[in-house]
Amino acid sequence: MKRIVIALGGNALQQGSILATSESQLKVIKETSEYLADLIEKDYEIIITHGNGPQVGRILIQNEYSKNITPAMPIDVCGAMSQGMIGYHIQQSLKNELVKRKKTLSVLSLVTQVIVDKNDECFKRPTKPIGPFYSKEEAGKLEKNNGYVMVEDSGRGYRRVVASPKPVKIVELEAIKSLIESNHIVITVGGGGIPVVEEDGIFKGVPAVIDKDLASEKLAEDIDADILVMLTAVDKVAVNYGKIDQKNLDRMTVAEAENYIQQGQFPEGSMLPKVEAAVKFASGKEGRVSIVASLKKAKEAIEGHDGTIITK
Amino acid sequence: MKRIVIALGGNALQQGSILATSESQLKVIKETSEYLADLIEKDYEIIITHGNGPQVGRILIQNEYSKNITPAMPIDVCGAMSQGMIGYHIQQSLKNELVKRKKTLSVLSLVTQVIVDKNDECFKRPTKPIGPFYSKEEAGKLEKNNGYVMVEDSGRGYRRVVASPKPVKIVELEAIKSLIESNHIVITVGGGGIPVVEEDGIFKGVPAVIDKDLASEKLAEDIDADILVMLTAVDKVAVNYGKIDQKNLDRMTVAEAENYIQQGQFPEGSMLPKVEAAVKFASGKEGRVSIVASLKKAKEAIEGHDGTIITK
Repeated sequence: MKRIVIALGGNALQQGSILATSESQLKVIKETSEYLADLIEKDYEIIITHGNGPQVGRILIQNEYSKNITPAMPIDVCGAMSQGMIGYHIQQSLKNELVKRKKTLSVLSLVTQVIVDKNDECFKRPTKPIGPFYSKEEAGKLEKNNGYVMVEDSGRGYRRVVASPKPVKIVELEAIKSLIESNHIVITVGGGGIPVVEEDGIFKGVPAVIDKDLASEKLAEDIDADILVMLTAVDKVAVNYGKIDQKNLDRMTVAEAENYIQQGQFPEGSMLPKVEAAVKFASGKEGRVSIVASLKKAKEAIEGHDGTIITK
Repeated sequence: MKRIVIALGGNALQQGSILATSESQLKVIKETSEYLADLIEKDYEIIITHGNGPQVGRILIQNEYSKNITPAMPIDVCGAMSQGMIGYHIQQSLKNELVKRKKTLSVLSLVTQVIVDKNDECFKRPTKPIGPFYSKEEAGKLEKNNGYVMVEDSGRGYRRVVASPKPVKIVELEAIKSLIESNHIVITVGGGGIPVVEEDGIFKGVPAVIDKDLASEKLAEDIDADILVMLTAVDKVAVNYGKIDQKNLDRMTVAEAENYIQQGQFPEGSMLPKVEAAVKFASGKEGRVSIVASLKKAKEAIEGHDGTIITK
């Protein structure tokens, strides 16, 4: 039985952005669950990870707008809240879909911490925008009073930026393994995991965001998965994206992918981390396959008929 | 090895109420973790549950105050978010405390749904206040537009009330059992669990709050625990509470407890559900012990030297 880590992108969790209600999120997640259930029916052993960008953004906005009434929670805690929220909707929807198909498997989400290196270079120059927009004046106050790093965001106002360190270790890995071995479908490292640093074995949350594709890759390595699938809104990885000579790729070797990365073919924060994760996973061990594909073509991609397949 | 379900009350999770910051919550949870680690060092097998009243109240307030900017999430989703938030803090703090004591056990929280009966009588007359206070005018609008049931709360304004149905079944039970058998310390049914109803095997969240002591009792039965411990702010269960002839109880039989309940000795929503849960657990099977005790005396109580012990 093939073991597959499936990383769900933003489009698998909601449509639209800031006006997403619980009902509309749940509707999208129900559709996503049908694609996931298709894979389970094919007897693939799947482990699910997911992003949380828009969701944690909204939680941060809620925290900001009511901070004079009740204290705002830090980013790590907001990340934990988003794991609860998204995990709940996925585990409920997928379970329901499995019940409809007479499958008795259980689905569950784990609150998951991921260790990052406190000396990761990116803590020195945070670049990941997060949470609400502020006026120049408010931004100045937050820099002075809270020590935030604020940047102007394409004319729309100022936003806080945080570090996006590399995932080093998944704290709850042993429990994840236990659950997989007992045939449960696990949802984990939501939003890339809650970022924590370790000092003398003691964990502490930090204000950062771990890329969910890189965290999913770490998980895939740690549980010795056969395939890492990153599902997104586009059908395939492309080079010369958006240009007249755009070329969608059916396959890439690790060497080709590294070459494209060097050419600057993939935008940071969207396709680049996916291709980086794909390269890291596929190059780690003989026989491993990384796939970038559209959510709706997940099954076809895993069977080799769609998406972009990255191998050593 | 004795298997013990430990239900943490509000005082184990925070001090003070609406002004609780993340830092102050974490400080209290770190202390709580020391008491829990003491039990683990005594070789008890513990399973942790917790309340979420003040925390989910604050999440509801945040959702309400920013609802014109980003949609407010329903109660079930807010409950899931509180499981993420509180679970994260407990699993991090307890793990840290275990590391200090050279124990390699892992600790993890599960997003947990609990099925309630959609025909539970209490859905007809909701009584559990939840979330922010409103003016009479706002309350009227919420009744009209959202179908909420609003009640006046002791002169402080109007609050929404929701049903508090009995827990019927823990959806993620099999996964909980797997994890316990593999020697992981599980945090589950946070806030009494996310309330869902089941129709033709399909689960759906409902706006309700399950009592965490009753949900913990259900868990204790389902995993065949030896002891159910409900930790709270008082040392013992008392009769004639607050009167000149107040009597703190060292022990109660199930029959005595039922008699006290009939006399109306225990206030609803605080000591009553604890004693009800204690009675239900202890009367279910020979040898089972229920305990109500103060967090700080948990170990002594389990060893029979403190708290109120309820047996058949």
